[in-house]
Amino acid sequence: MAEAARLGDAARGTTAPNPNVGCLIVSDDGDVVGEGATAAGGRPHAEAIALEQTGDRATGATLYTTLEPCNHRSVRGPTCTDLILASGVRTVVAAIQDPDTRTAGAGLERLRAAGIELRIGPGEQQARSSMAGWLTRQALGRPRITLKLALSIDGKIALPSGESKWITGEDARAHVHLERAHCDMILVGRGTLAADRPRLDVRLPGLEERSPRRALLSRGEPVEGWEMLRSPHDVFRLHDVNDLLVEGGSATATAFLAEDLVDRILLYRAPILIGEGRQSVGYIGLDAIGDAHGRWEARDGRQLGIDRLEVYERIRSTAA
Amino acid sequence: MAEAARLGDAARGTTAPNPNVGCLIVSDDGDVVGEGATAAGGRPHAEAIALEQTGDRATGATLYTTLEPCNHRSVRGPTCTDLILASGVRTVVAAIQDPDTRTAGAGLERLRAAGIELRIGPGEQQARSSMAGWLTRQALGRPRITLKLALSIDGKIALPSGESKWITGEDARAHVHLERAHCDMILVGRGTLAADRPRLDVRLPGLEERSPRRALLSRGEPVEGWEMLRSPHDVFRLHDVNDLLVEGGSATATAFLAEDLVDRILLYRAPILIGEGRQSVGYIGLDAIGDAHGRWEARDGRQLGIDRLEVYERIRSTAA
Repeated sequence: MAEAARLGDAARGTTAPNPNVGCLIVSDDGDVVGEGATAAGGRPHAEAIALEQTGDRATGATLYTTLEPCNHRSVRGPTCTDLILASGVRTVVAAIQDPDTRTAGAGLERLRAAGIELRIGPGEQQARSSMAGWLTRQALGRPRITLKLALSIDGKIALPSGESKWITGEDARAHVHLERAHCDMILVGRGTLAADRPRLDVRLPGLEERSPRRALLSRGEPVEGWEMLRSPHDVFRLHDVNDLLVEGGSATATAFLAEDLVDRILLYRAPILIGEGRQSVGYIGLDAIGDAHGRWEARDGRQLGIDRLEVYERIRSTAA
Repeated sequence: MAEAARLGDAARGTTAPNPNVGCLIVSDDGDVVGEGATAAGGRPHAEAIALEQTGDRATGATLYTTLEPCNHRSVRGPTCTDLILASGVRTVVAAIQDPDTRTAGAGLERLRAAGIELRIGPGEQQARSSMAGWLTRQALGRPRITLKLALSIDGKIALPSGESKWITGEDARAHVHLERAHCDMILVGRGTLAADRPRLDVRLPGLEERSPRRALLSRGEPVEGWEMLRSPHDVFRLHDVNDLLVEGGSATATAFLAEDLVDRILLYRAPILIGEGRQSVGYIGLDAIGDAHGRWEARDGRQLGIDRLEVYERIRSTAA
């Protein structure tokens, strides 16, 4: 299942509005005979690709999938449940049940009724992590929103002049590009657009085609090549975006945080002190230190060259 | 030598103006027969304590010490070199040579001349770390200065109202008290004194007696119970302080950083966002991001409950 989650994770940012599912098929005698991830644009599904690869060797095999196979008909082809039933697969291992109400366990039920051995739950955490964007959309009706910050030790994003190049080093910046490749859309504010004219593309060998859609948070005139969000709440209209990356600047970060519309913070921390400078976050509605606690959890931390990546996730009892 | 360094480290904050040396004596057949650390106030020396413990069993033994034994006479007793020569010890292992010009290798030379086997260098890094305060004083003519900061993710030390209780949790605050116990003096600014009336004492079981001297950075009237520093440069007058802990607030931190008088930062990072709030550090003379790089190195990082301790050290080519 770990390998299935990895396959799905690699497709993150390309499959919206569909989930980035990963699927692996292992034959009766232990060989990997098929693998797949949801294709770009969302079709074909991971299971369909893996079963196509597997062909006759599916008989008696075990199919690992990060998400319950779909059971809702589409004009774009048969359901994965139908494909599995026709394939000869003996066992299906699914990390999580499909929260989509059109399937929501119905696929698994049909498989079980047909005598297929089922296991639900193995690798659930990895699967949830790899499909976090899509799962957030299912649970909250909007993309998972990741805020990227590049900060000094003392939490500044720039000198008073606005100079911010470069706070972090090459390894950290390469990691940002990798993260961009796994998002469907990147958003900045008009101030950042005016100051930096950011390309927001993916400059990593082999991933240049993965540059996501670009959006601008602004009430002003449209800008060619940029989709417009007039307020953070417009994220609820983004039905074809699983993962949204908010890249700055401070006013934009503050607007999203003040509306509690950030699920994850990717913080690249450079070992420098800036002192007087531009702050990373402005007023977010906090009036007592006590209220600041219990909202964020450090989920990952690692060195990227001389910088350190800190990953925080919003603690939500209602989250996916 | 690791154990000798630990013995010395435990005495950090109590031995100024002398170094907090650790010493361990191992008999010919491998038993630990004596151990010592510089006593409170700086006398007796670690070697004298350990040799006193060892008595006759010193014959043929190996003496481990984090610093070259002293060779400069004092009215307060014989030199450690004399004590070792009289003891029967066969081998002396010293982590570092004494930078004090009154000894500076002369002790080791006398031991070698007397036929004692010498090894210099094992455990040097641990020894330097445990005696960093005293070594900084030898090299730079002032205490090692540690700046303590308790910050949010976004680098704030308080709400705009000044409310800062509590950004960090109990584990982090207990660590601060432990660090206080290992400093000779703690300093705050007048703003912090007025706002918080800090006790700056050590509230840890068994270490209550280790509360260091208290100092105030202020050009104003003296305050009872507090030593006065009129400017950061007054640290050069602190001849009996190895380790100085600067605890705040922002103006004080900024004053010391602007004068490049901080050697180490102990940063307690809470997983909270404050947004609009008081910044940790003001203008420190930085006019280009490029100039901020290469000055600080992350030397340690670990979880303290839900908070994270980040330790940064100033990179100085001239440092001890």
